[in-house]
This record gives sequence, C-alpha cells and structure tokens, in this order.
Amino acid sequence: MSERVVLAYSGGLDTSVAIPYLAEQTGGEVIAVALDLGQGGEDMNVIRERALACGAVESIVVDAKEEFARDFCVPALQANALYMDRYPLVSGLSRPLIVKHLVAAARQFGGTVVSHGCTGKGNDQVRFEAGLSALHPELKVIAPARDYAWTRDKAIAFAEEKGLPIEVSAKSPYSIDQNLWGRAVETGFLEDIWNGPIEDLYDYTADPAQPREADEVVVTFAGGVPVALDGRALTPFQIIDEMNKRAGAQGIGRIDMVEDRLVGIKSREVYEAPAAIALITAHMELENVTVERDLARFKRSVDQRWGELVYDGLWFSPLKGALDAFIADAQQHVSGDIRLRMHAGQAVVTGRRSGASLYSYDLATYDTGDTFDQSLAKGFVELWSLPSKIAAMRDRAQG
Amino acid sequence: MSERVVLAYSGGLDTSVAIPYLAEQTGGEVIAVALDLGQGGEDMNVIRERALACGAVESIVVDAKEEFARDFCVPALQANALYMDRYPLVSGLSRPLIVKHLVAAARQFGGTVVSHGCTGKGNDQVRFEAGLSALHPELKVIAPARDYAWTRDKAIAFAEEKGLPIEVSAKSPYSIDQNLWGRAVETGFLEDIWNGPIEDLYDYTADPAQPREADEVVVTFAGGVPVALDGRALTPFQIIDEMNKRAGAQGIGRIDMVEDRLVGIKSREVYEAPAAIALITAHMELENVTVERDLARFKRSVDQRWGELVYDGLWFSPLKGALDAFIADAQQHVSGDIRLRMHAGQAVVTGRRSGASLYSYDLATYDTGDTFDQSLAKGFVELWSLPSKIAAMRDRAQG
Amino acid sequence: MSERVVLAYSGGLDTSVAIPYLAEQTGGEVIAVALDLGQGGEDMNVIRERALACGAVESIVVDAKEEFARDFCVPALQANALYMDRYPLVSGLSRPLIVKHLVAAARQFGGTVVSHGCTGKGNDQVRFEAGLSALHPELKVIAPARDYAWTRDKAIAFAEEKGLPIEVSAKSPYSIDQNLWGRAVETGFLEDIWNGPIEDLYDYTADPAQPREADEVVVTFAGGVPVALDGRALTPFQIIDEMNKRAGAQGIGRIDMVEDRLVGIKSREVYEAPAAIALITAHMELENVTVERDLARFKRSVDQRWGELVYDGLWFSPLKGALDAFIADAQQHVSGDIRLRMHAGQAVVTGRRSGASLYSYDLATYDTGDTFDQSLAKGFVELWSLPSKIAAMRDRAQG
Amino acid sequence: MSERVVLAYSGGLDTSVAIPYLAEQTGGEVIAVALDLGQGGEDMNVIRERALACGAVESIVVDAKEEFARDFCVPALQANALYMDRYPLVSGLSRPLIVKHLVAAARQFGGTVVSHGCTGKGNDQVRFEAGLSALHPELKVIAPARDYAWTRDKAIAFAEEKGLPIEVSAKSPYSIDQNLWGRAVETGFLEDIWNGPIEDLYDYTADPAQPREADEVVVTFAGGVPVALDGRALTPFQIIDEMNKRAGAQGIGRIDMVEDRLVGIKSREVYEAPAAIALITAHMELENVTVERDLARFKRSVDQRWGELVYDGLWFSPLKGALDAFIADAQQHVSGDIRLRMHAGQAVVTGRRSGASLYSYDLATYDTGDTFDQSLAKGFVELWSLPSKIAAMRDRAQG
Repeated sequence: MSERVVLAYSGGLDTSVAIPYLAEQTGGEVIAVALDLGQGGEDMNVIRERALACGAVESIVVDAKEEFARDFCVPALQANALYMDRYPLVSGLSRPLIVKHLVAAARQFGGTVVSHGCTGKGNDQVRFEAGLSALHPELKVIAPARDYAWTRDKAIAFAEEKGLPIEVSAKSPYSIDQNLWGRAVETGFLEDIWNGPIEDLYDYTADPAQPREADEVVVTFAGGVPVALDGRALTPFQIIDEMNKRAGAQGIGRIDMVEDRLVGIKSREVYEAPAAIALITAHMELENVTVERDLARFKRSVDQRWGELVYDGLWFSPLKGALDAFIADAQQHVSGDIRLRMHAGQAVVTGRRSGASLYSYDLATYDTGDTFDQSLAKGFVELWSLPSKIAAMRDRAQG
Repeated sequence: MSERVVLAYSGGLDTSVAIPYLAEQTGGEVIAVALDLGQGGEDMNVIRERALACGAVESIVVDAKEEFARDFCVPALQANALYMDRYPLVSGLSRPLIVKHLVAAARQFGGTVVSHGCTGKGNDQVRFEAGLSALHPELKVIAPARDYAWTRDKAIAFAEEKGLPIEVSAKSPYSIDQNLWGRAVETGFLEDIWNGPIEDLYDYTADPAQPREADEVVVTFAGGVPVALDGRALTPFQIIDEMNKRAGAQGIGRIDMVEDRLVGIKSREVYEAPAAIALITAHMELENVTVERDLARFKRSVDQRWGELVYDGLWFSPLKGALDAFIADAQQHVSGDIRLRMHAGQAVVTGRRSGASLYSYDLATYDTGDTFDQSLAKGFVELWSLPSKIAAMRDRAQG
Repeated sequence: MSERVVLAYSGGLDTSVAIPYLAEQTGGEVIAVALDLGQGGEDMNVIRERALACGAVESIVVDAKEEFARDFCVPALQANALYMDRYPLVSGLSRPLIVKHLVAAARQFGGTVVSHGCTGKGNDQVRFEAGLSALHPELKVIAPARDYAWTRDKAIAFAEEKGLPIEVSAKSPYSIDQNLWGRAVETGFLEDIWNGPIEDLYDYTADPAQPREADEVVVTFAGGVPVALDGRALTPFQIIDEMNKRAGAQGIGRIDMVEDRLVGIKSREVYEAPAAIALITAHMELENVTVERDLARFKRSVDQRWGELVYDGLWFSPLKGALDAFIADAQQHVSGDIRLRMHAGQAVVTGRRSGASLYSYDLATYDTGDTFDQSLAKGFVELWSLPSKIAAMRDRAQG
Repeated sequence: MSERVVLAYSGGLDTSVAIPYLAEQTGGEVIAVALDLGQGGEDMNVIRERALACGAVESIVVDAKEEFARDFCVPALQANALYMDRYPLVSGLSRPLIVKHLVAAARQFGGTVVSHGCTGKGNDQVRFEAGLSALHPELKVIAPARDYAWTRDKAIAFAEEKGLPIEVSAKSPYSIDQNLWGRAVETGFLEDIWNGPIEDLYDYTADPAQPREADEVVVTFAGGVPVALDGRALTPFQIIDEMNKRAGAQGIGRIDMVEDRLVGIKSREVYEAPAAIALITAHMELENVTVERDLARFKRSVDQRWGELVYDGLWFSPLKGALDAFIADAQQHVSGDIRLRMHAGQAVVTGRRSGASLYSYDLATYDTGDTFDQSLAKGFVELWSLPSKIAAMRDRAQG
C-alpha cells in the first residue's frame, strides 16, 4: 500500500510545493492540514483550495482559534510563561496543537507519514516530533528541509518545472511565525546581534515612541482565566484578540533577545506579543494579591520549569501534566479585576480588587484601625535570625 | 555603667527626638550614626550637627556611597535581584550596610545598645536585628516605635516640651526610604489597592508619558560589574548615579505592586529605581549572550533565592555566602557591551557585543556559512522525546 | 460566660494534672480529647475515664487510626517524606490530625480555648498553633509548659495537693511521642551528641544485630497507595500496622540524627519507624519503575518541600495543597508489586513488577531482541554536549 | 598523514582486539591509554605490555588513584552525590578523568582520533564524548561497538584470524565496570526486574547476612575532606581504599535499582560501593551538625543537580563549575569527627563532635542550663502562621 502523508500546511510557497514533492518522494498521497490559530492573513478557504490545486488528495482547514486560546494560551498565562523571563512561547504553544490535528487527520484518512517544514537547527522540529511520538508514535516523520535538504530555491525551481499554481513573489527577507499569542521574526541582519531592530520588522505593534492617548482597560479573571474586558464577558480568544489590538496600538510587547535553543545554540530573536505581555502583567499582579506567599515563591520555580518544558517541546510529557495540576490548584482563588494603563510600550497595573484578596487593609495600614499586633514581632525576629546568629558566633569562634 | 546607645540616625524629626528620648529611657548616652548612601537631600554635616544639638554625645557621618554601590548594589545586579520579579530590594540592601557601621561605632565608642526607627510590622526591623545578631549578638536592641509605641505625635510633643532645635514641619503624607539603588514610598491613600498612584509620589523619575527625546547609552561590564558608560570608565557609584539621572529622566523604573512582607502580611508599595531597572535589563541580556544554557537556567533559581534571602533580612546568613560563590563563578565571563535605548519609561536592549560571547553567527545563521550539522538533529530529537514517548505508550496501554 | 478549654489529652501525668490546673487558671471547664493514632499503650477507655476523674466536664476518645493512615501517612509515603533525608515526620503528621479533632470538639462543645502540652522550643507548638490558626483562628491557645512555665515537678506537687487519682511513677528518663508512623525519643544523655544510643531507647524495633531469619514481603500499590501485603488486600492502617511488626522484628527503621528545628536550633533526635522506612523504600523503587525521568527529577524537589512544610507545621497551607495536587498527578501510574527482603536492619528491594512499568526489556537488553536504535545516539550526544563545547571553546579563547 | 588513534584501554578482550581493528579501519596507528583508578585486578604493567603485543605503537599506563580520589571522589562526597537518591556515580566519575588523560596523550603523541568501547545505549558514551568536546573538540571519536556494530563475537573471530596473543576465556556472564568509588554489574538475568540479585554478582562486599563482629570507625573531616580514620592521617585514596575493605567486609553499599539513563530508557543496575555509602553517611551527618539550616535545605537541590549533571556526562560544564563553587563555600566548616558503626550491611552514625558545631547543648537541653527563651516562641509562631491563617480565613469566606 502506498504511503499517505499528512502535511502541516501553511499555504505558503514552501509547503505548497512540498505537496507534489512529497508525493514524488514517497510515491504516496498528500493530505494537507491547515490551522487557523488567529494568525490573520489569507482566507483559510483560499489556503484549502491551494493545497488541492497543488495535488493534495485531501485538504483540511481547522478553525482552532478558541481551542488554541482556551487550552494553550490560557495555561501559558496561568504559568506566567516567559522563557528566559522574556519570551511568551508563541511557537512553542502552537506546535502541540498542530500535532494534535495532524494526528486526528492521520487517523481519519489513514495517514502513515507526517511531514512538517521545520529545519534541523530550530526548536519546532522537536516540538512536532516529540508531540507526534507521544500522540501517535507509529507515524513516520519527514522534514524535507532537514531530511532532504529541501530549500526555497529548490522549491521555486520545482514549482516552475511542474507548473504549480503558486505565485512566486520576491522572497521576503523575513522568516515569520505568528499566531494569536504573538509573532516571531528572524532575518539575516538580526544575526549580527549588535544591530538593533528596525520598525519594518513589526506588524502586531505600533511604534511605542509615537505620541498617542493612553488606553485603560480592566481585565477580569475568574480562577486564573480571563473572562471579561471592561466588564464585557468574552471568551479567551476574544479577550486575547482584543488585547492584541489595544495593547498592540500602544506598542506593547516588543521583545528582542538572545535565546538558548534546545538544540544547543544561541540565536537572536525578535518577537511581538502585545496581548500576552499585557495579560501576563495583569495576571502576575492578581496573583500577588490572591496567592499566599510560600505558594507564590514555589510557583515561580514551577512556572519556570513549565516554560522550559514547553519551549523544549515536551507539552505532552508526564511532568507537564503534574505541573499543570499544581498550577490549577494555585489558580483557584486568582479571581478579580486588574486595571491596566497601556501607553507608550508599557502595560502598567494601576489598580486591583478581588473578593479573594489576601491583602488586608486592617493589617497593612499605619492609620487608625491597625489590627497588627507589633509586640509579636520581637519573638519572631529573634527566632527567625537565630540560625544565622548561631552560625555567625561559630564563624567568629573559628576565626 | 550607663548604657551607650548607638542610634541609626536619619536627621529627620523622629530619630532627632529619639536622641533625648533614648537618653531618658535608658539613662545613658546616645551616639548618632548617619550614612550617606547616595540618597541626596540634606548636607550630611548639617545632619551631624543636628544630632549633637539634640544631645548626642557623638555624631558620626559615614560617606558609604562607593561601598554601598560596590558591595551591595553590584551583587544585587549580578543576582538580577527583583523580589517577586519586580522590586530591586532598595531598602533590603541598605540595612545590612547600616548595621555594619552601627556595629563599628559600637565597637569604637563602647556602645551596648543599638536603636533604629523601624516599626514592628515592616521588614526593616528584621533586617536590622538579623544583621546585628550576626555581626554583634551581644548588643541589645531598642526600636522605640515598636518597643515603646513611640509615634510621630509623641515625638512632636516631646520636642516641644524639651525645646529641641527641630523644625516641626507639616507632616508629609509620605513615608519615604531612599538611597542610590532606589526610592520607596508609602502613603495612606495607596492602602486602597484599587487607587492608582499619582504623579506627586515620584521624585527620581519624570513622567514617562511626557514626550521627550530618547537617550541611548552603552553600558560596559567586566565580570558582571558595570565599569563604563558610553566608553567612559567609571566607578559603580558613578555609573548608578548617572543612570539614575538619565534613566530617571526617561521615566524608567516606576514600580507599583502588592508585596509579601516577611512578617506575614501583604502590603502595597510604590518604588522608583531607574538605574537599577535599566542596569538589570542590560545585565540580564549580557548574561543571555555569555552564560551557558544550563547554568543560566539554574541561576534563575539561585537569583530568586538570593532576592528572597536579602528581602527577608538574611544578608549575613551562610546561605547568602554560598549563593554569592555560585554567582561569582557564573559572572566570570559576563563581560561586554550592551546598548540600551531609554525612552518613555522603558529601557530596551538594542545591541550586545562581547569577546566572551557564546552566540556564534556561524552556528546560528541560515545564510551561507552555516556550520550547524542538521543531520545530528534526528537522533537528538528521538532520544530527547523517548521518555515521553514510552510514557505515552504506557498511558495508552493503561487506558 | 466562662471559658471552655479543649485539651489535647494523652492520659499521662502532665495532661491529667493540667485538667484541674487549667480549670483553676481560666476559671472555666475542661474538655479532654484523646486520639488513638495507633500508638498502642493504654486502653483508650481507661484514658477517657481518667480525664473525667481529674475533673474534665467532657472526655472524648477518637479512634483515628484509619483516618491517620489514609489521610496523613499515605500522603507522606507518596511524597517519600524524609525530612533532612532521614526523618519520616512522625510527630509532624499527627499534630494536624489532632488539631482537626480539637477543633471539631470545640465546635461541638462550645470550646473557646485550646490547650496543648508542648514547650516553647520544639516544633509541635508550631504545628498545633499553625493548624489552629488555619482551622479555627478565633480560638485562644494556652500552652501551660510555655505560657505558665508549667513543669513536671509542679504537676506532681499539684496532683498531690489536689489528691488527684494519678499514679506518680518514677519519672521515665525518656520523653516519647509515638504513633502508627513511628516513635520519637528524647532523653538527657542523648543531648551529648557524641554519645551513642542504647538498646533501652527502642520499643518498635528489635536489635538489628540479633541473628534471625529474613522476612520477605510483597507490597502491592495502586495509584501510590499500598493496598495489599503478600497478596492479602488490607487497609492502609492494617498494612502499616503489620509492617511495623514485621519490619520492626528485623530492626528496620532506627534513626539517630542531629536535626534542624523550625525554632532555629539544632537538636539530637532518635526515632524508630519500621513501617515508614520499609514502605518508603518500596514506594521509591516503584516510582523508579513507573514514573518518567523528568517528572521523577522534579518530584524530588516537590517531595523535599512537602517534607519541610509539614515539618514546619504548615500542613494546612495553600502551598501544601498545590504540592498535593502535583503529587496526586504523579501517583496515577504508581501501581504494581515490590518484593522486599527485610533483614538485619535493612529493607532491600529484590523485585518489582508493574502493568504500568516504563522499563522495557526490549529497549534495555543487550541480548537478542534489542530494539534500541544505537545510531540515534551520535546526534544526541553531539547536540547534548554542544552548549558545554561552545563554552569550553570560549573559555579557551578567553585564556 | 595517517590518523593516530588514542584508545581508552582496559586490557580486556574487546579493547585489546580493537587495537589492530582500529588500525585496520583507520589505516592509522593506535596509542593505548590505561588508567589505574583503584579498580584492582591485573598488574598495570601486564596491561601495558599486552597493548604493545596487540600492535599499539604507544602504550601508556597512568597511576591516577590519588587524582581520582582527590579530584573526583571527594567532590562527589561533598555533594553527597547519589543519583536518584541511591547511586554514587561510580562510572560517571571515572569517565571525565579518563577523558582528561586521553586528551593529554593525544596532545603528547599527536593523536587525531579518540576511541572508546562504549555502546550507543548507555551513559558512558555521553560522558566520554561530552568530555572530549569540552577538552579537545577537534578530536574525532570512534566508538566501534556503536559506530561499527563491533561485538564480542566479532572480536573473538578477529583475534583468532589475526593470531592475537589474547586468551579467549569463556565469556563471563557479567558486564562490569569498577573503580575506587564502586563497582557496577550488568547481566542478562537481571534484565528481568522481578529477579533478585544473587550472591555471585558481588565482589567488593561480603554477604551482609553472614554473622560477624561489628566494626567501629571514626572518620575525621576537615573542610568537607576526609583526612583521617581512627585518628590516623591518610590521603583520600587511602581512606576510600581502607573503607572499601572495612565497610565491604560488613556487606555495606549494595544497591539494586531501576535507573533512568540519559539516553531515555530505564535500566536495571546492581552496584556495590562500600566506602562511598559509608563516607556519604558520615559526611551527611557532619553537615547536619555544622551547616546552617537554610544553607542545608538549599544545598539539597544543589547536590541533586550536581549528581544529575555528572550522571548526564556534563562534568566539564559551566553549571558544574558554579555548583562546585557553592559546595566549596558550604564545606568550609564541615570539620570534625563522625563515629560510624558498620555492621550487617549498614553504616550507622553513633557519635559526632566538631569544633565547628552549630549544635548547642545549652540551647537544646531540657535540663538545667537551658538558655533558650521560650517566651519568644509565641510571637514567632503567630507571624510564622499568619499567611496560612489569612489564606484560611479567605478560603472560608469564599466558601
């Protein structure tokens, strides 16, 4: 029986040309699977038709926007997931969802091979293949760029030779991955890490230096899930989508960093993630108000590990599941309102209120009404300091 | 023999009145010790004279600016110390240095008691007394506000009764602590955490919303220590001082948060720390370039613990010393230049260069000259994913 | 209205005499609450009657053996809880359960005060009072030993003066706390930490040096819970009880250590915990077989923190709840059989089998049938080593 | 120019036959390097001669016993290094030292290739090659078992064909690696993890079930380094060597476990490490006495990471260096005597004494002389419990 190749399809030149190329290489049939992850751009139906025109025997388009927001972006928000304290895991979140739908398509259409467009030096190959090995380990994987040394130039030549219905535009200097949670840009001149980014790189965000009016928003959370903006109940997708526009208009969420890739090299990356950065800012402050100190301190190490795992392609790992259980427990009281002032590239919390607040005016105030018993402090301070004190006395005695 | 009380003296009303009050309470003599930690404000000689005028038998003024920068701010910078990911430990850094000089004065002048102005519900009492118990555990401690329920109103009445040469101005609504590394403000209306801060709170920073020209600076580090600005070799104090002015003029470093105090309550705090925030931003990115991945990942947990310890008053603890040794080792290659663009409240890294860089253009580039062997990736990905794959197969078999 | 004091009652001299003493001190009534935690010793009804004879207005005895095993010992087992890698938290587990029943009694009988027999330099006062502050913060607490400087000598004098029906035996040189999970012994001559323990200290364990036949047992776990011994389905209490006898007969579970108390001092402790040590040994090895590597590595830090929290009296803290959620998730596949050989003070795993095993003979064997593809290793090793390699080349270039 | 292959040479059949085989495969010359790591067995000169007889152009024997003890075993002891809480890293410690001497030989003799006998599914290939990539990344690596599918059967056939002066004894059923720090055994019947080990597996340890006299030893440490046994000053090698004999005679240090390999599979391993287990037991207790609580708690996570790193082949990594700096700082006061009773498979601490002790009889005792001020406890307990108390009140209010 011939192979059936399930291809992660973007609609772009490379994966379009890959359709006949994979058919030729494997002697099989290609099933194209494209996901709407809120990335904007072309109409998904046009993308679906293009795959068929290029020779796919099946072409599927999945509207995964709400699923992506609910099951991938919200958990990242609850983990305050910022790889290396900066990067909100844009591509690291989408790959496991794409894998899930590739596997579903393989099951539906008898796929035996999965193909993706990643190279052999990035993180996304790991995220695809680690996900596949967890969800459907029997599937073979072909990554033409890595396994066949397939390049854009070869793709263009192949398209012309086969007369494919693909418009070969002037090559964009940018390599871009984008979805609801953010946008990643790579390009040659950024590979000199002394070069600064230029305005042309950005699409989700306006220039933060441009004068404009500030925008104030109240984000409401229930159990760690954003549920309303300015009092309007919305789905997670709607909230992220609206925040991308509003925070993006204020230039919020631009990131420029040198990053440690899983494959062992450092790379320079530019991202923009306006909703992600604004919402994480709001969520962290609501946690400051509603999460107890020791839990908050330990959660930082859980959050860090969660971000590393997802960055490293291990979304479907057992550790991820156990960290999720910890985080879910920690989110149960993360409910309330955060008022954010968004302006000139920054989202700043200016107010917080919560029925589940652990902040107590009566304990905190220095005014009348103070209920904190200061006489307790002396004993506390002495016993708190006692181990260091004994050690210091020992150190002195030891000289 | 009568007691000799070494008082941490600020020059303000409360500690000035405390001089005769402590003498009266203890039947002893008071030695005033004031430190210049770069906090600005009054002339230190005026402060010195005021203590004598209030009855101190000795009045010492210590220019501790360079010591504070070198031995307290720079280690905090190397630890990227941000308590709860936000607060650069302004007061937490100064207290151990004040303790050190109080102890020196006690040794010099035969002090038997130390006194400080902290209340019983804040962190600073812990920092003072934990420090004292490590450096000179035999000293007794009196905290009049906590131990004698000494208040501002009592101080004013006492000053008038005794005819002290103190100007009793209208009470400022703000309680302020400030030094070279930043400034903390507390005030009644901020105790309602839904209230936003007002412009009047700030002193180190201009309003970030005011249009102005951006300021670009190149910060040079050697072994994790900032050593130059724009190519001019400077001491740590000079660098922090200049950065306070330049980053402050851009409105950088305002912080408004709900914070977990050591004594078990949450409080609302407003800080401004322009140099600290700008320099930590630069330092973190230089670490991204020069520190190996696994070391960087583990260092995050070391940095977090370092910040918690110092916040919690345990500067002189054995754990602090061992974390310092880790950090010192990790800093040995953190050398190079970071270009920061400071504007509208944000310090953004736009360039980095280092002779100790671990970023390799040849390994990272997708252009000609790529030396990364992509064929290695397949084996890596398969073994990297293997534990999750085996677990997923088990989970499926278990149903 | 007069106070009603709910007393944690052991039946011993100190808490018996405390009944009239507390009544006298508070002018109120005393309700005695005793728990059967599997500690053995006196009949619980005798204990109940004694409290009444000493003047208690109510005397309650709770058979909490199964509850203690199920809700306190089993979670400790799942966390492999060994404080400082040694101590299975014997007393740290019982105190929160006692608190739960004291609070229930206070609710039932209108208690307004709770009293316990702990001193002011141990951990148990913290466990009692932290538990009470979480479960019923309105209750006042009286700890006579700490708050009234109540001592054994005073208790004896008071008993004689009041003619209490208490037998005042010769003071045992030992201070003992024991329950189903183990037994703790303190005594004067052990306070010289160079002194070794003597055989007379021990009660749960036979001398491991005595020659005897080995005992082999198969422990069956389901989802991290021990459910059978040698194929006989038993409750957690029954399993722990039987293992105490069998492992105790082999001299297993003696512990002699210097320990860091929460109140800031080091103390020397001798414990015996035969079932706890044998079951944790079995459980850890079953985790080795059924828990994925990254999860197992992270779980060690969760387990350590769990043990510290419980030791430190924070059973009812939010962090404890979130760690429990992590551990519960990690236990779902910890099912199977462990064969233990118990002999001469040691419990040694000699076999393991599990339907949920992640050990694969086919992947592990070096014999025919090996399915591991060794060709994958080269790429794995190279990329695994790449960050260290780049760093080493940098270090060399830097000299 | 022809290749010069530096071979990690054991003297056994496989690496002996590898000498002419590598010469044939590479067309080059082979330099044999054998290390004395205290593994016992054949005379090193006999081993050296055998390599020459098999065709090596150079044959080097290095007495690395003291270096191994001092620079590899002692750091492991200071880290209390037990991978998965059990395995003292026997092979993981020797590989980086072998690498160091292979690289030295390559530099001395113009080696261009390094060869080792590891397979592609174990950890040791990673340890060799990660070490080589750090110390001398230009060297090529050949692992005949992995890269040429070289097997024992092929080796025997090759030896007979070439008439090599090698005695082909009946194949031992055991695959063994041993050195001063311990001994690892793998064999077919252990691959069924329900099978128990048999007495024949063991060489360093006597049967713990055999009746014998106990052996008591006093181990003296200075700064975390063992420096004397029973008052006799000895080198680290001498101490470990003597402890192997004495603890081994008591059957101490047998380990049987399922282990997580770096390459992603679980394997079953049997080890014996009498000195390692006894010395780690002693060292941990001396740390309990001399290391402050918070430092001890954090050091556990450092120790765990140290063990994982070394197990995972990253001895020469930057993170290892920074962890070493932490540990070195933590060891400065780990000085004193530990009395161990060794008997029937167990090493038990029965006494400890140290000039650097943090244990204070005066603070710990319940007898006359108690200097602990119990009145401090009330304030401590209340503030310690305050965050949990506030959270519990919130939880109740939230329902």
